Amino acid sequence: MSEHSSAGLLPGTNAPRSPITAVQVVPVAFADPPLLNSVGVHEPFALRAIVIVHASGGVHGLGETYGDSAHLARLERAGKLLIGTDAFNLNQVAARVEQSLVDDAGTGGHGTGGMVTTTSLTDRVLSAFDVACLDIQGKVLGVPVSTLLGGAVRDAVDFSGYLFYKWAGHPGAEPDAWGEALDPAGIVAQAHRMIDRYGFTALKLKGGVFVPDQEAAAIEALRAEFPGMPLRIDPNGVWTVETAIRMGHRLEPVLEYLEDPCLSIADNAAVRSAINLPIATNMCVVSFNDLPPAIEAHAVDVVLSDHHFWGGLSRSRLLAGIARTFDLRLSMHSNSHLGISFAAMIQLAAATSNIDYACDTHWPWKRAEDDVIRPGVLEIRDGAVKVPTAPGLGVELDEQALARLHQQYLDCGLKKRDDTSYMQSIHPEFELKSPRW
Amino acid sequence: MSEHSSAGLLPGTNAPRSPITAVQVVPVAFADPPLLNSVGVHEPFALRAIVIVHASGGVHGLGETYGDSAHLARLERAGKLLIGTDAFNLNQVAARVEQSLVDDAGTGGHGTGGMVTTTSLTDRVLSAFDVACLDIQGKVLGVPVSTLLGGAVRDAVDFSGYLFYKWAGHPGAEPDAWGEALDPAGIVAQAHRMIDRYGFTALKLKGGVFVPDQEAAAIEALRAEFPGMPLRIDPNGVWTVETAIRMGHRLEPVLEYLEDPCLSIADNAAVRSAINLPIATNMCVVSFNDLPPAIEAHAVDVVLSDHHFWGGLSRSRLLAGIARTFDLRLSMHSNSHLGISFAAMIQLAAATSNIDYACDTHWPWKRAEDDVIRPGVLEIRDGAVKVPTAPGLGVELDEQALARLHQQYLDCGLKKRDDTSYMQSIHPEFELKSPRW
Repeated sequence: MSEHSSAGLLPGTNAPRSPITAVQVVPVAFADPPLLNSVGVHEPFALRAIVIVHASGGVHGLGETYGDSAHLARLERAGKLLIGTDAFNLNQVAARVEQSLVDDAGTGGHGTGGMVTTTSLTDRVLSAFDVACLDIQGKVLGVPVSTLLGGAVRDAVDFSGYLFYKWAGHPGAEPDAWGEALDPAGIVAQAHRMIDRYGFTALKLKGGVFVPDQEAAAIEALRAEFPGMPLRIDPNGVWTVETAIRMGHRLEPVLEYLEDPCLSIADNAAVRSAINLPIATNMCVVSFNDLPPAIEAHAVDVVLSDHHFWGGLSRSRLLAGIARTFDLRLSMHSNSHLGISFAAMIQLAAATSNIDYACDTHWPWKRAEDDVIRPGVLEIRDGAVKVPTAPGLGVELDEQALARLHQQYLDCGLKKRDDTSYMQSIHPEFELKSPRW
Repeated sequence: MSEHSSAGLLPGTNAPRSPITAVQVVPVAFADPPLLNSVGVHEPFALRAIVIVHASGGVHGLGETYGDSAHLARLERAGKLLIGTDAFNLNQVAARVEQSLVDDAGTGGHGTGGMVTTTSLTDRVLSAFDVACLDIQGKVLGVPVSTLLGGAVRDAVDFSGYLFYKWAGHPGAEPDAWGEALDPAGIVAQAHRMIDRYGFTALKLKGGVFVPDQEAAAIEALRAEFPGMPLRIDPNGVWTVETAIRMGHRLEPVLEYLEDPCLSIADNAAVRSAINLPIATNMCVVSFNDLPPAIEAHAVDVVLSDHHFWGGLSRSRLLAGIARTFDLRLSMHSNSHLGISFAAMIQLAAATSNIDYACDTHWPWKRAEDDVIRPGVLEIRDGAVKVPTAPGLGVELDEQALARLHQQYLDCGLKKRDDTSYMQSIHPEFELKSPRW
C-alpha cells in the first residue's frame, strides 16, 4: 500500500494537530569527573545536545542526546526537515528523520567515545525528536509521557549505584568530592558514599580498567561489605572468551548479571554456554538488526535498553515487547546525561512492566547545579526516583541554565567525546585494545 | 521492580484520567450466507459481541469481538474487574484482564468454529477492551485512534476481495443475492460481482473445500480472467506437506502468497523450503508465543495479523514491530465482523507502515443494514476504505440497530459458531479431517 508522500499530509488525512514550527539544537557541556573505563577516562566536560521542538500553539517539547559535532550536524539537518510535520504523527517524524539521513555515510557521532559504534544511525538521530514530540503530545493532552507509552505500572523507578574506578581529580585540578578509587577498598568506600547519599539497593561496577582478577576482587569486596546487594560488573567487552569464562565461574556466586564480558554476539554466546550467570549487553545488541542473530545464538539474557540509540521511547517500547516475546530480560543503560534524558528514562521505565532490574544512571556523577531543567523534580531517594506526573516529561527547561551550559560548551573547546585521546594526553603509553585481557 | 497492586493506583501516581464506570457486553447476530470452508459451512447467522466501555465524563468506547457464549462469560468477568481502571492506562487494563482469567481453564470461546484454537486466551479477551479504551482516549483527546497508534501513514486502506465457495442459499431459504459458486466458473463470476461492486485490486479464495486440484483450477481461472491481479488461496491447513508442495509448485507462477497450506509450524516450514512462494499464516502463528519457534523454523513469510486474537490494537503494533525486526511481512486476517471491528482494522492498518498487502475482510458478505454503527462512514471504493479522521475509531453506535441485532441473537438461538455441526445437519456424512488431502 502507498504511504504519504514526503511532501506532506495527503488530502483527506486528519489535519495536523501540532505541526512543528521550529527546532533548536543547543550543544551543552557539564563538568564530569575522571571516571576510568576500557577506552580511557572521562574528559573534564561531558557533552550533550538539547533539542527543543516548537509546535503550533506555543507549546514546546524537550529532547536530549549526544553532543558530538557529527551528531549535532545530523540533528540540525533532521530538524529542518521536520518543520510542518505533526508532532502527533510519530510515524511521519521517523520517516522524515530517515529521509534526512539518506545521503549520510554514517561516520562518527556515536557519542560513546568509541565504546558503542554499531548503533542505528536513524534511531540515534530519531531519539531526541521522538522524546520531544511525546513531551509536546503530553503537554497538549494533559497527560504524562508514561500514559502515552501505555500507562504507568509503577510510581517510582529503581536505579543502581554506578561505581567507577577513578582518579582523585583531573590532572592539574583540585581533587573532586568523590576522591580516588583505584582498588577494591576505594570502590567499597565509593559504594558507601553512594548508598549513604542515594539509598541505592543495587550496585554496578564499571570494569575493563584493571586486570580482571583485581576487578573480581573488588566485586567480592562489595559482596563482603554489602551482603544480599545485587551486584554487576561491566568490562565493556575487553575480555577474551577464556578470561570471561574464568571470571564468570569465579563470580557466579556473587553477580546478578555479567555485562558485556566480550564484544561480539558469537563470543558472548560462547561465554554464556559455559557459565551459569545471565549475560547482559548494551554493546552487542544495540539495534533492532542485532536482535535476530543474538536471539538465534542465545548470546545474552538481558538487554540494557537505551532510548538514545534505540530510536526513542516509542521504539524502546517495541524493544520491551520483543524482549518479553523472546524471553529476554530488560534493564537500562546510561551515558553521562542531564535531566531531560533522566526524565525520559524514568517515564519509559514507569510504563514498561518488564524492566526487570534497577536501571543504570550516571546522575550522581553530575553536579546538581549542572543541568538545564528546573531543579526539584528528579531526586534519587531510597535508590529510586518518583515518576513525574505532570503533563509531558514532567520537567521544565531553565533557559538561563541552558545558556550557561551552552557557554560552558563553547568555552571547554571539546567537540566530541574522546576518552582515549584524553587518557593518552596524560598517559601516552595507553593503547586502545579489545580484547585487552 | 514492584508494580501497582491490583487494588488500584498507588499514592503518587497520576490520578486516573478516564476511570471506567461501566462495561456492557451485548451479543448480536447478523445474517450470514452459506460460505463453505474446511470445517463446514457458515450458519445462517454470525455471532459477535459488542463491548461498550463507559468512562467518567459520559464518554464511551466501542469494541467488537467473538460472540461465543464462553467468550461472552469471560468478557463479562473481565469487564467487572475493569471498573475503576483508567481507560488511559492500557498496561493496567491488560493486567486486570489477565487477572480475571487466572482460574480460567481456557475451554472454548475461540470464536472461529474450530479453525483456530491456539490463540492466547488473555489476548483474545483483552482485544475488545483495548479497542474500546483507545476509542475513549481518542474521543477525550480529540484525535483518531490512528494517531494513538503512532500516526496515520496512509489515508485509505486497501482490502482484498474475499471469494468463497458457497451454496446458492441456506437449505430451506431463498437463494441469496450472490448465488452459487461451486466450481471455477462460479468463483470467476463471484469475483466479477465483487470487483464490479467494490473495485477490489486483489483477490483471495477460501479453499480447503474441494480437492486441491479443483481449487488450483479456480485460481488459474481467476488468473486467466484477471491478468496481473494479486491472488491468494487459503485451504486452512488441510493439505498434507506433499499436497502443499505439489500445489505450491503448480501455483508458483500465479499466487501472491499461499496461506496456511498446512496446520503446523513444522509442516509449513517443510513446504516453505520446497517451494518458491511466500507462505502466509493466521493459523500456526496466532500468539506471541508462536513467534520464536516460527521464526527459528523459517516457517512463514507473512503473518496475517488479527487484532481480535493478538490482544487488540496496541499489541498488534508490537506484532508489526516484531515482523519488521525479523523480516516477516504483514497482512490482515478477517472473520465475519461488523463495523466496529472494521473501523479498528482500518485505524490499525492506517498507522502500520509495514502492512504489505491488501487486508482481508468479510465486509461484502454482510447485508448493509445489518450493523450496529451508523452507516456512511466505512465504504469500500476502488478496493479501499478511507480512514475515518473523527476522534476515536470514527464510528458511532446506533442504539436501535444494536437492539435489533441483539434481538436477532436471541431469536436465532445460536450460542457459538459451529460450522461443522451445521454442515453435518445437512450432510451427515461430513467429517472433520485435517489434513484432508
